[in-house]
Amino acid sequence: MSVTAPKGFVASGVRAGIRRSAPDLAAFRSSLPAVGGAMYSRNQVQAAPLQVNREHVARAEPQAVVINSGVANAATGERGKLNAFATAAEAGRLLGLNAEQVLVLSTGVIGVQLPMDKLLPGLKAAVAGLSENGGGDAAAAIMTTDTHPKQAAVTTSGFTVGGMAKGAGMIHPDLATLLGFVTTDYPLEAGEPLAFLRPAVEETFNAISIDGDCSTNDSVILLANGASGAVRTKQTDRAFARALTEVCAELSRQIVSDGEGATVLATINVTGAESPEQARAIARRIATSPLVKTALFGRDPNWGRVLMAAGSAPYNGGYAHVDVERMTLSYNGTIVLAAGAPRGGDPDLSGPSCRIELDLGLGEGAASYLTSDLSYDYVRINAEYTT
Amino acid sequence: MSVTAPKGFVASGVRAGIRRSAPDLAAFRSSLPAVGGAMYSRNQVQAAPLQVNREHVARAEPQAVVINSGVANAATGERGKLNAFATAAEAGRLLGLNAEQVLVLSTGVIGVQLPMDKLLPGLKAAVAGLSENGGGDAAAAIMTTDTHPKQAAVTTSGFTVGGMAKGAGMIHPDLATLLGFVTTDYPLEAGEPLAFLRPAVEETFNAISIDGDCSTNDSVILLANGASGAVRTKQTDRAFARALTEVCAELSRQIVSDGEGATVLATINVTGAESPEQARAIARRIATSPLVKTALFGRDPNWGRVLMAAGSAPYNGGYAHVDVERMTLSYNGTIVLAAGAPRGGDPDLSGPSCRIELDLGLGEGAASYLTSDLSYDYVRINAEYTT
Repeated sequence: MSVTAPKGFVASGVRAGIRRSAPDLAAFRSSLPAVGGAMYSRNQVQAAPLQVNREHVARAEPQAVVINSGVANAATGERGKLNAFATAAEAGRLLGLNAEQVLVLSTGVIGVQLPMDKLLPGLKAAVAGLSENGGGDAAAAIMTTDTHPKQAAVTTSGFTVGGMAKGAGMIHPDLATLLGFVTTDYPLEAGEPLAFLRPAVEETFNAISIDGDCSTNDSVILLANGASGAVRTKQTDRAFARALTEVCAELSRQIVSDGEGATVLATINVTGAESPEQARAIARRIATSPLVKTALFGRDPNWGRVLMAAGSAPYNGGYAHVDVERMTLSYNGTIVLAAGAPRGGDPDLSGPSCRIELDLGLGEGAASYLTSDLSYDYVRINAEYTT
Repeated sequence: MSVTAPKGFVASGVRAGIRRSAPDLAAFRSSLPAVGGAMYSRNQVQAAPLQVNREHVARAEPQAVVINSGVANAATGERGKLNAFATAAEAGRLLGLNAEQVLVLSTGVIGVQLPMDKLLPGLKAAVAGLSENGGGDAAAAIMTTDTHPKQAAVTTSGFTVGGMAKGAGMIHPDLATLLGFVTTDYPLEAGEPLAFLRPAVEETFNAISIDGDCSTNDSVILLANGASGAVRTKQTDRAFARALTEVCAELSRQIVSDGEGATVLATINVTGAESPEQARAIARRIATSPLVKTALFGRDPNWGRVLMAAGSAPYNGGYAHVDVERMTLSYNGTIVLAAGAPRGGDPDLSGPSCRIELDLGLGEGAASYLTSDLSYDYVRINAEYTT
């Protein structure tokens, strides 16, 4: 499990004292030369570490990653950027790497400077503690409002893909979302990690939503070191792409299940759209509607809200064209609407998961989205999460 | 107050038995020939009454309006449309008007057929009860999750503009939002009501958001009968436009203040944008962010969330361009961020209203938005509002 599942990776998680009483600093590295790729939030307000990482990735292949929780180092001006550089430089010194070979990430409160007096000593402990069994500690140290660590691993065809993530809130697609870290001992060339990462992220991390908000810090990073010794063929490449997608999908599911205050994991399947893009726009709108999400919390098949959302999905500068007379809608397999009229079905929504299937009857486009409900606890967690 | 404030309008509100134990059927008409205009939701899923009203307005000037609460008559197929027609026809018969001169509106649960056995007898009582003092009863009968009726009136330059509205949830701009009814005894020609209504709605009803969801039934209707005998000049036309905007603005404020579960009325002012459209896109994004809204509920100046929202405002197919280094952000006049770095201000958010001012430092574009917070009660109301 986690980032140490593949061969040749070590990790650690320690308490640096940035958060009051929880592990808050994680590190991992490849023990042999690796190649890497990264995707970032498309938010126009980018946290300092993302600016630093862009410069680093442009200059060198990443070999190690340092992540702190508690403070996001976003909206921190020039000093924030210097602190991010200093973190990478100090980690590089401790690890015997160039600063450019280290990526840094932060998650937590926006607008607060990193407490470098705590972070730098913590970093020393984190590097000292790096171990092949440290993946779990690292996954725990990157949590914020998460209630448990998110880890996954798949071994197949002689290689392994492992990963960890943090999520819970401020999660929305259309960005390399949240913090996700994937490692593999499958052999890749420079530049290939991003090529494999993009499609995997598109159908996993980018197809989930908890609250429709997207962070200034979201990043997904892949490191590959070839330590498995696997011989590459077209077949193993396909197997790797599948394993990568599977690890990302599993981490995504864990994130939505652990969404802030979530009590239901809902899958929104939109089919029969004019195009996959239209299906995606409509699925996204349904997945982010507060009225759909509060109804899910109430275990209420208030399907009128799904129609409302489907009819107001932003698309190409307007709303996506739909025709209610052609729609079929079901909850957990029970049809509630057909050809635009109610069918009187009474779906059972008592379980911990819910499948909402909307066929638009317009074409062949399909898309799927994962979302959670909007509960009292979501409000509590976010009203109390202090600045 | 309400739609009977101007001369020559009568209204009523009765219990037809559509809702369990609340007034649920309202009617109003002009006692002398009137001209009218209507704006509708841009949701692609349109409730049956909106389809009927479009046909009616195309054929005749509206003279009377009938509104039921409890059932939205949306996603009700052919039968729903026939029921809406039948309501207009029966109201016309009782009022001595053609069916085409009557507009019908519904608000409530989607996907349920109108109980015509209750509605038609109720209609008879509503028409019998029409009175110059009935504006308040009408405003009460159109409520759903509203906690109090919304009414407003302005008298100026020898004429009056009056109005009522219902709102509370599923409220979002970019449509002729919610149900709003405005009457005036100012003299207008055929076609003019819509010309005056559009700009007034754009800066009032279309600049508020409670949950980012937009209904299948939203409509704003204006009737004008000239009963004031006012003589029109360019000056009185301007005074009328102002009074109309004022009534719409007051109804909008009442709607957001009474937003489902709202404890704070927040004004989002965005200035210094590249254009008014960009300012509006960013103000809207801030006004609809669940994280901004839960922080408002918690009276927490978690301004990082405002930056997060400002950096991810959908605009021209991407995110609106912003530069955090140029931003100034204040809460209730206390600056928290200047030139992209925290300023350490500690705003007082204890009051019932909050003013968030974001200057982007890019240009001259400005826009304003009204929104409410996201509270436990919003979740309770919408999780329990039964299908």
